[in-house]
Amino acid sequence: MKTIKIGLLGLGNIGTGTYKVLEMNRKQIEAATNTKVVIEKILEKDVTRDRGINVDPAKFTQEPNDILQNPEIDIVVELLGGKEPATSFMLEAMKNKKHVVTANKSAIAANYDALFKSAKENDVYFRFEASVGGGIPILNAITSALQGNEFNEVMGIVNGTTNYMLTQMTENGLAYDDVLKIAQEKGFAEADPTDDVEGIDVANKLCILMLLMFNKYIKPEDIPTEGISKVTKQQIEDAKAQGCKIKLIANAKNYDGKFECSVKPTLIKNEHPLAGVSNEFNAVFVKGNAVDDLMFYGRGAGALPTGSAVIGDVIEIIRAMNIKG
Amino acid sequence: MKTIKIGLLGLGNIGTGTYKVLEMNRKQIEAATNTKVVIEKILEKDVTRDRGINVDPAKFTQEPNDILQNPEIDIVVELLGGKEPATSFMLEAMKNKKHVVTANKSAIAANYDALFKSAKENDVYFRFEASVGGGIPILNAITSALQGNEFNEVMGIVNGTTNYMLTQMTENGLAYDDVLKIAQEKGFAEADPTDDVEGIDVANKLCILMLLMFNKYIKPEDIPTEGISKVTKQQIEDAKAQGCKIKLIANAKNYDGKFECSVKPTLIKNEHPLAGVSNEFNAVFVKGNAVDDLMFYGRGAGALPTGSAVIGDVIEIIRAMNIKG
Repeated sequence: MKTIKIGLLGLGNIGTGTYKVLEMNRKQIEAATNTKVVIEKILEKDVTRDRGINVDPAKFTQEPNDILQNPEIDIVVELLGGKEPATSFMLEAMKNKKHVVTANKSAIAANYDALFKSAKENDVYFRFEASVGGGIPILNAITSALQGNEFNEVMGIVNGTTNYMLTQMTENGLAYDDVLKIAQEKGFAEADPTDDVEGIDVANKLCILMLLMFNKYIKPEDIPTEGISKVTKQQIEDAKAQGCKIKLIANAKNYDGKFECSVKPTLIKNEHPLAGVSNEFNAVFVKGNAVDDLMFYGRGAGALPTGSAVIGDVIEIIRAMNIKG
Repeated sequence: MKTIKIGLLGLGNIGTGTYKVLEMNRKQIEAATNTKVVIEKILEKDVTRDRGINVDPAKFTQEPNDILQNPEIDIVVELLGGKEPATSFMLEAMKNKKHVVTANKSAIAANYDALFKSAKENDVYFRFEASVGGGIPILNAITSALQGNEFNEVMGIVNGTTNYMLTQMTENGLAYDDVLKIAQEKGFAEADPTDDVEGIDVANKLCILMLLMFNKYIKPEDIPTEGISKVTKQQIEDAKAQGCKIKLIANAKNYDGKFECSVKPTLIKNEHPLAGVSNEFNAVFVKGNAVDDLMFYGRGAGALPTGSAVIGDVIEIIRAMNIKG
């Protein structure tokens, strides 16, 4: 059996989830690819933290080039987050003919052009399923099984933190500030929640969806974006009275090559499939000119669901490598 | 640009939908594959019917071997339905090194072993996304992006006819016989509705889902199956009183290699995502040990949605052929 070696950049929450998914499902992953998958090196400063996994200390490095320039490594999995140094690391890996998998929506949304171009020039695969919707295999669907469609619209709940907060405001009548405190205590919201609550994370994800569905790049900062920080108890009550829920919706439409897009709190009728998407769940609703309405629903965050998406990308790359021979 | 030639077996409802999807989205399909896709021959007796498409009469044939043994043809798309002669045709096509795409759940569920074996022996691709859930790309998801999971459970509404009937009974208080008549008038149910209303179609689809998710083959006739023909108005009212809906559910569980499966009318709590799946829509709910709960929702039937799935398979095969070179 052939061996494929992975270099992991970052062993935080998603990195640990990816490691766990590979360990717990090693048997079927190897059966699916007919390949032994080895995590060869891990770029990570914190080598002592108890992550509930057993990592050979010799695998840790603090020198990026131990991975990026390592001739043994076939696939680099970037899970550092943030635009830099993640983007530079991915470009360097591609230059060295390594396939790249990432979960990093902000790096892709900001630098898609350089990343896509480099992947093409270096004839390597670049996959990023985990960057939108966590475990939900939406990017794979729109770039493979649904490619026979022209896409007209996408509508999504793609941020678990804000969906949790809006759900709690709706179900328990809580005010924004109170529910933010609870979300922070439960670890659903970060100490500085700006990226989530102001819709920045959602705009990055919508940018990626538009790229893949409409082949259209609109900078995340050019997407009209409004977060949930101004949503009041009263607005939630008014929505209820109209048979609606308020959801933070990423929406983009393609009218024959004219595009409209926005991220904003939106009234969703209770009968709409997106209204039933509660708490930390995500869902993406797409409309194609052949397939019509489709919805994908699942866990938009979390170590194992996101790890599932990362490992799915790794498997797809190995399969393509195997076909290539 | 390379050309790939397709032989189409059958130009009924799904065949016509497939033809239409290819015509209307030819530009992006060819861009996605960098390949010109030509329907070279069509096995079909009815050459005069107005299908709303423009087919060169020279493409029609009534001789299967004009397709199955045609050295020009790369991919055979089988849309005849029924176990035979569809299975024999697919096997003959594979023997002649043609890749095969089908929407034929009853042929796969009955003859999966011969079909999978032949595809392997002849080193050809065999894809059948349209056989379960129409346009919903569920099979592609579980065999690609989700392969990093061990699947524990699948629960699906995978028959549009019966879901339409149950929805109408629930929403309008109609009795089974009355709603069957309406469904037949609207073309949602066939003159002989047995396969749909007795759950046979659903058992075929569950058989395919178990094959791909659990790597376990259980003959459709060995799946405990109960249709909707005995569901009464009273039962629907009783379900309502309990905050539930009655849905025809295909369910299979994998407890560490012990399998349970059934097709039967099932009480689904109104809060469950499957309760909101109405009329002709389908949905498949899966649980993986990494990704946890996922749901895929969309049109389980119809010419264009099913054509979208068929063309998606064709695109995936062309891409793999292109990687192979």
